[in-house]
Parts: sequence; C-alpha cells; structure tokens
Amino acid sequence: MAERIVLYLFKQDEEKLQGFAESLEALHHLKSCTRCFHIAEGELCMICADTKRIQDTLCLVEEPLDVIAIERTGTYLGLYHVLGGLLESGKNDNSSNLRISELLHRVENDFIKEVILATNPTTEGDMTALYIKKKLEPYHIKVTRIARGMATGGDIEYADEMTLTASLTNRKELI
Amino acid sequence: MAERIVLYLFKQDEEKLQGFAESLEALHHLKSCTRCFHIAEGELCMICADTKRIQDTLCLVEEPLDVIAIERTGTYLGLYHVLGGLLESGKNDNSSNLRISELLHRVENDFIKEVILATNPTTEGDMTALYIKKKLEPYHIKVTRIARGMATGGDIEYADEMTLTASLTNRKELI
Repeated sequence: MAERIVLYLFKQDEEKLQGFAESLEALHHLKSCTRCFHIAEGELCMICADTKRIQDTLCLVEEPLDVIAIERTGTYLGLYHVLGGLLESGKNDNSSNLRISELLHRVENDFIKEVILATNPTTEGDMTALYIKKKLEPYHIKVTRIARGMATGGDIEYADEMTLTASLTNRKELI
Repeated sequence: MAERIVLYLFKQDEEKLQGFAESLEALHHLKSCTRCFHIAEGELCMICADTKRIQDTLCLVEEPLDVIAIERTGTYLGLYHVLGGLLESGKNDNSSNLRISELLHRVENDFIKEVILATNPTTEGDMTALYIKKKLEPYHIKVTRIARGMATGGDIEYADEMTLTASLTNRKELI
C-alpha cells in the first residue's frame, strides 16, 4: 500500500506535490470540535456551527469517519456526538476514555429531545449502545437505535440469521 | 472447486461414498411442491404439509434456497411462495416464467391476509417486488417488504448511502 502511494506521488508534477505538502502541513491546524468532537478547523465543526441543523437531535457515533459517512447520505439534519471509541468486551472498563460525560452534559443543557445510537451493529457497538441507553434513562428523552435489516444489494441466501430475522420482523407495509 | 470435491471424496471410506451415491440417486425423487414450489418429496413440501404453520401469511421468495435461509432463523411461522426467478431488467418480459398467476390464485382462494415480498434488496428484486405489489392491489390484502438497514456486523463507515439512510429512517425506539 505504501509503495503504491509513493509510486503514485512519483508520477505527479511538482505543483501537485507542493499542494499536497501544504495540505499535510494544514493538518496541524485541525482540532476536535469542542461540542461534538468531530474534526473542526475552529472552535466548532462545520456541523455544530450550522444553525440550520436540527438542534435537539443528536446522532451518537464512534468516529469522525462515521459522521462523514452519514453526512454523505444528505438525509440526516440533526447534530452529532463522536464517542471516540467503543466499550471493549472482556477488557478493563474503558468507559472513562469515551465522551460519555460530555454527552450527558449536552443532553442536560442543550434541550436534546432524541439521541440516535448509531454505533456499528457489532457486539461491541451493541454493548456500547445499551450502556449509553442506561446512562440516558434519568433524562427521560427518546433514545433510538439504527435499524437492522438487509443491506442494499444483499442476498437473502447468504444473510446471517440475525439480519434476516430483523428484516422480517421490521418489514414495512407497502401502500 | 471440482478438484477439491474429488480429492475430498477420494479420502472418504467406501461406506461414506455408498451413502453419498444413494443420496444422489434419491435426488430423482425430489419434486416441486404443488402449492408453494419449494422442494418437496411428495405432493406438498414439509412446510405446506405442516398444519401448525400460520396459513394466512405468505412469504414470497425467489428460490428454494431463500426458503432454507429463512427457515434457518426459526422465527417465521407462515407459508412461502417460490417465484422461481426475478423480472429481468432491460430484457424481454419474462413475467410469464414466474409463478405469479399461481400466487394470485392462492391469494384469492386460500384466505391469505398478508404477502411478505422477500425478494433480494437488489434492483431486480425491488422491481419484481413492486410489480407483484401492483398485481396484488385488487385483492386488498396487506403487502409488506422486508426491512432494509445495517446488517449485523456491518460498518457504518463502509455502508452504502441507501442502506445508511434506511437504517436511520427506520430507527427504533429503545424502551
């Protein structure tokens, strides 16, 4: 992989390389958004700074890359909260490394009405979602989990049993 | 692949090979269920012959292998209807090769209350589901489509946009 990148760069002209070098330097200036912990250039990330976003809905994700993936869909209009990791199964309690207290602080102070738990549908992602659901109980807000089902382009024949069960149980009426 | 199978068979003892040969011969006796077109040994398949199954719900699938996959989950208790294929996009109309008239006949005569369209979530699967939905309209029964969302073990970062949108839109409240 590294070789491929070097060979690719080798083929570029000087101007392009210069631009790339400058972009790399600019990485120094990137910070974490002080509110949601997504990548930011200033105090707040572009999403938190956008007052047109729905302010009372938070989508909880593991990493900034998940924010980017969800933003690409163009369908989610609320804010995010980047947890910075997942609970690790079978290891020491790493919950203090995650931005959970920051989440609870936002829920308490920012009039949040719904938290969407959008951690990956894996064992650790589910465990973390459940843990945070418990932590959110005292606040009496709506807590939702992203839906499971068949992925677009998937094949029923090769789908695992949990996915298939979810896709049958959550079937939707066509009207 | 064929080489691997031959080498595997080569390592087996005679008794096992004999059993395998007999199983192959028995394949001649397999038929299509006259009601749902799943694999059957007699007139009806094991599922259609089971009077404990819910008789007013049909799950429409493309192939017998899909029936087997859904049966493996152990959560679906209704009956099936095996379409025998999907509509082909951009080709001649192949709808007459599919068991659609047989489906409509069952819906009309067997007091069916719901048809679950469980074709694959692909372009052709979706197209076929929509086509059959239209065909079922005159019967005024419930027509549902299997849910889309994140597959178990999936990764939000790499999920396609349609899957991600579905999994956010169909999110479920945790109670």
